[in-house]
Amino acid sequence: MDFRCRIWLTNNGKAFGKGPYDLLTAVSSYGSLNEAAKKMGMSYSKAWKIINMIEDRLGFSLLRREVGGSGGGGSYLTAEAEDFLIKYSQFLAEADQALADLFQKYFGDAKTLS
Amino acid sequence: MDFRCRIWLTNNGKAFGKGPYDLLTAVSSYGSLNEAAKKMGMSYSKAWKIINMIEDRLGFSLLRREVGGSGGGGSYLTAEAEDFLIKYSQFLAEADQALADLFQKYFGDAKTLS
Repeated sequence: MDFRCRIWLTNNGKAFGKGPYDLLTAVSSYGSLNEAAKKMGMSYSKAWKIINMIEDRLGFSLLRREVGGSGGGGSYLTAEAEDFLIKYSQFLAEADQALADLFQKYFGDAKTLS
Repeated sequence: MDFRCRIWLTNNGKAFGKGPYDLLTAVSSYGSLNEAAKKMGMSYSKAWKIINMIEDRLGFSLLRREVGGSGGGGSYLTAEAEDFLIKYSQFLAEADQALADLFQKYFGDAKTLS
């Protein structure tokens, strides 16, 4: 036996979860919202819609755009977004560990079922 | 800002979660799977299907039936099911508290957003 968990942040509705986390992490990797959206199999307009919704719910800007230049410009995370992603992933990692410990405490003897 | 969480147990697929917990708790209250199913707005056959699936995944019997008698018989939780429900609800309560503590640690200063 094992357990699964889904955790998301709310602020007048869903504010942040695994989908947005993956999208922003991809933006950080590729330096481009367009590339990040492609890698996640979503349209550029849907990606922007998600970004705008989260910015609205979280109350701060997530992306800054750089236009032109030698690299052709791109989208980058704001410092606030970077800090937030780090906090969120630490929160999830500690939550996973805490839940695994509790699962072991209550159902550890049932592990042989799986 | 706040958080939400869904936790479920798995054993070759979903084994136990909030829905089955509510169903079994209702059986315990009403002494009848039929009454419990009605209160949850599901058919008797669907309730049995859920019970059978969970018994299969957890590996022990959940209900025992008493036929006839002055009360007209009914469905009751097995001792193993009762123990399991107690463990499950303690697990969830401690999990909720642990996650609330972690949320406070990482996002406590963002509570004013909500």
